[in-house]
Amino acid sequence: MAMSSFDALIQDLVIANRILANEDVVDAYGHVSVRHPDNPRHFLIARSVAPELVTTEDIVELDLDGQPVRDEKRTLYLERFIHAAIFEARPDVMAVVHAHAEDTLAFGVADATKLRPVIHSGSFIGTEVPVWDIADNFGDTNLLVTNMEQGRDLAKRLGVNNVALMRGHGFASAGRTLIEVVRMSVYLPRNARTLMRAKQLGGTIKYLSQGEIDARNRGYSPYSTETWRAWEYWASKAGCGHMLTRPDDEGTRTLRG
Amino acid sequence: MAMSSFDALIQDLVIANRILANEDVVDAYGHVSVRHPDNPRHFLIARSVAPELVTTEDIVELDLDGQPVRDEKRTLYLERFIHAAIFEARPDVMAVVHAHAEDTLAFGVADATKLRPVIHSGSFIGTEVPVWDIADNFGDTNLLVTNMEQGRDLAKRLGVNNVALMRGHGFASAGRTLIEVVRMSVYLPRNARTLMRAKQLGGTIKYLSQGEIDARNRGYSPYSTETWRAWEYWASKAGCGHMLTRPDDEGTRTLRG
Amino acid sequence: MAMSSFDALIQDLVIANRILANEDVVDAYGHVSVRHPDNPRHFLIARSVAPELVTTEDIVELDLDGQPVRDEKRTLYLERFIHAAIFEARPDVMAVVHAHAEDTLAFGVADATKLRPVIHSGSFIGTEVPVWDIADNFGDTNLLVTNMEQGRDLAKRLGVNNVALMRGHGFASAGRTLIEVVRMSVYLPRNARTLMRAKQLGGTIKYLSQGEIDARNRGYSPYSTETWRAWEYWASKAGCGHMLTRPDDEGTRTLRG
Amino acid sequence: MAMSSFDALIQDLVIANRILANEDVVDAYGHVSVRHPDNPRHFLIARSVAPELVTTEDIVELDLDGQPVRDEKRTLYLERFIHAAIFEARPDVMAVVHAHAEDTLAFGVADATKLRPVIHSGSFIGTEVPVWDIADNFGDTNLLVTNMEQGRDLAKRLGVNNVALMRGHGFASAGRTLIEVVRMSVYLPRNARTLMRAKQLGGTIKYLSQGEIDARNRGYSPYSTETWRAWEYWASKAGCGHMLTRPDDEGTRTLRG
Repeated sequence: MAMSSFDALIQDLVIANRILANEDVVDAYGHVSVRHPDNPRHFLIARSVAPELVTTEDIVELDLDGQPVRDEKRTLYLERFIHAAIFEARPDVMAVVHAHAEDTLAFGVADATKLRPVIHSGSFIGTEVPVWDIADNFGDTNLLVTNMEQGRDLAKRLGVNNVALMRGHGFASAGRTLIEVVRMSVYLPRNARTLMRAKQLGGTIKYLSQGEIDARNRGYSPYSTETWRAWEYWASKAGCGHMLTRPDDEGTRTLRG
Repeated sequence: MAMSSFDALIQDLVIANRILANEDVVDAYGHVSVRHPDNPRHFLIARSVAPELVTTEDIVELDLDGQPVRDEKRTLYLERFIHAAIFEARPDVMAVVHAHAEDTLAFGVADATKLRPVIHSGSFIGTEVPVWDIADNFGDTNLLVTNMEQGRDLAKRLGVNNVALMRGHGFASAGRTLIEVVRMSVYLPRNARTLMRAKQLGGTIKYLSQGEIDARNRGYSPYSTETWRAWEYWASKAGCGHMLTRPDDEGTRTLRG
Repeated sequence: MAMSSFDALIQDLVIANRILANEDVVDAYGHVSVRHPDNPRHFLIARSVAPELVTTEDIVELDLDGQPVRDEKRTLYLERFIHAAIFEARPDVMAVVHAHAEDTLAFGVADATKLRPVIHSGSFIGTEVPVWDIADNFGDTNLLVTNMEQGRDLAKRLGVNNVALMRGHGFASAGRTLIEVVRMSVYLPRNARTLMRAKQLGGTIKYLSQGEIDARNRGYSPYSTETWRAWEYWASKAGCGHMLTRPDDEGTRTLRG
Repeated sequence: MAMSSFDALIQDLVIANRILANEDVVDAYGHVSVRHPDNPRHFLIARSVAPELVTTEDIVELDLDGQPVRDEKRTLYLERFIHAAIFEARPDVMAVVHAHAEDTLAFGVADATKLRPVIHSGSFIGTEVPVWDIADNFGDTNLLVTNMEQGRDLAKRLGVNNVALMRGHGFASAGRTLIEVVRMSVYLPRNARTLMRAKQLGGTIKYLSQGEIDARNRGYSPYSTETWRAWEYWASKAGCGHMLTRPDDEGTRTLRG
């Protein structure tokens, strides 16, 4: 019996959670969501639980105000408004990650070095990575994005970019598919580390050119063999290779974001 | 049959030991203690054994002079006086960690950069992290806190703060619950690393403001879903998820510090 | 029944893939190849799959234009032209690695510090490690080597050296045997890290002298006890110790590159 | 049936190998030896095999010229002369480690920062850590210590100290017991990392005073509870906790170095 494309998407969301945990992008905190394939004003995300422990039963459906669509007794992520606000502001975005990956944090805290792509796998973060400071418009807070107003302020700072750093906190990234946003979030800290080391080595740093960033972006295809290769590998390392839905099932593939 | 709240606390202390080992906060050395729930002049801590190997049988009960309450043939931690002295000086403190987490050490050794919160998960270390140097009052020692006089000197330097660095040695942290002190001790090295990297990147560093630190502190609740999420995740990673006492058992929860 | 030397070579290639993955030289991306022992104009490499997941069934035979020798429906590595072009240009080379090992990347991006051997295990990278920038002759690309023209340009920059860094991308290394190229690729990032740290410590850096590099190179023998020791250890750590062909089987050994 | 003290020592030597591998002090290369308890002109060391793979059958007995005492067909470590020469020069030394632990290497390569104890667990490396450069007396070599003349030159540079760095290569450390030399070798890289980070943080660095180093050294006892705690923990992590000989077996303990 074939798995429905919706069930396959739920499984992919579980895989995404596990990959992000296993690749040290998230720890107890951080989350990943995907827009509902049949209703663009809804999205899917886990209830409040550490990503490594997420199962299909933990996935809930929220609307673009961050409210659960169905009766839900379980606690939700405090910061689900990051996802709601980005999905609201950016119809092109199908998947969102919020995380505190350690090696990105310094770039939101020190102002002398802008985070920009220096390696080809970092190209997907895009030319500009804005830094959002919650204090600019909300003063002294606990730094968490706990309502739609804060979420919308972050989404506004993100603008048309793929990643925004959040000062003293982490980052939000937005992609055209789950696989893209996971990959971007895995390579973001690697790009950050490479840039830090390049600064230490000194001299002139050669960033990716705008033309290179564009060329890589044009070549991206969510279910290409190359993209799948990483997804399959990371899922396998995270212990959920058995949950993979093969992309050669064309029917399923085209239905999925 | 329900587990008593005291037995649950002992298990939590074992979990705390395992988490600190698994998160690289302690290695063969370092320890964690909790104040006795029924007798504030006693506290619970393991006998002299590496935290990763601690079981419920290893927990002993000591008084505020660091002496065992019952006949005890097994060797105790040489530095149990750190715990005794902090519990003595700070009635508000319910749990203490002493550790040598590597990435905190440089801040106790070099004097140009003060360790302060730069990330939201580091806020619990508080505005001020004093550095205690055992040599100031005790001259040339083996750097270990091996009696109450040294322990009290450290507790005095800690003052009303949550963490004190110990020059050339490690740190002591103090919390309102076991979960809080473990979390603080896990995120302390992460905050330290972020600050080191920010210094390397250069420019002005934006620390958390006093208002932000206060806002985060006000929002803290030891058995909130968010706090529990990390505890559950770390315990699970450390291989002792099966020892967790669910916080939805209200009777147990309110009895525990 | 004795394994043929060709089958043993295929197994060695699988082992090489797994070692490179386990030692963090490759992740989902990166590949290793070996020249065909009976036909120097062919080489063996995996189909497009993450190195950690490679099995003997994944190995395909390509010619020096990077084209499959037999009917092949499975997708091939986009960058197989790196291997084809180096085998074409360098008859002395029997094995090639292309990878993105993180700690080598900064040296291709910052121009103030040249990557050179500072530790004895890094000596095999050779006196000179040229940096190839695909943009010099091909302008704005996706940075991947996707045809023979680009591959040949890289091979030309590699010249008679053992390693070329690829700006913003990774490196290509070339050896006289599979074991040599794997070892070189494992120690290349370690040499890079040591050099970075030495720069931070400051003062004059003592690189290996030309005489030392030559002396080490003269002493190298692919199946010496010392070389085998590392191969056996890495294979064992990567979980494929059972696939090792013992070098004391002299017949097999001399037939293999 | 009680294990003889000699057999227990052999097992301790196997444990030492495994601990050093598991703690990343050695990889495929590096070795540890112990002086023969009944014949101070002999010592015990593994045949040429990666430390992680060493078993009791791999241990061989060598004399102070580095030659095997019994008929031995198996290949020996090329650099066994490091051990022979240090045992020859230093009657007080009962155990020797030679390793390439990565974070020590930069201190042998850059001349601006001397490696000295900054943390209490690093005190055992002693006040002075000389750097030996094989090139000073032997010119261009492959950097390996492959004969007694080179070994003696290294031992001379080591002098009365506990550790000598070997430029571009690694270090040699010497202790009064196996447990001491293992512990010193594990904490040496940690001390090196702390010092590197302290240099980055800037300002004045507070090293351990001579009085502190002396106080720690006086307090050291090879089978104290504190020392055993680390040995037990590391052995347990390295998967050979079952091979531990309990130190409470007094007869065995006093017979062992």
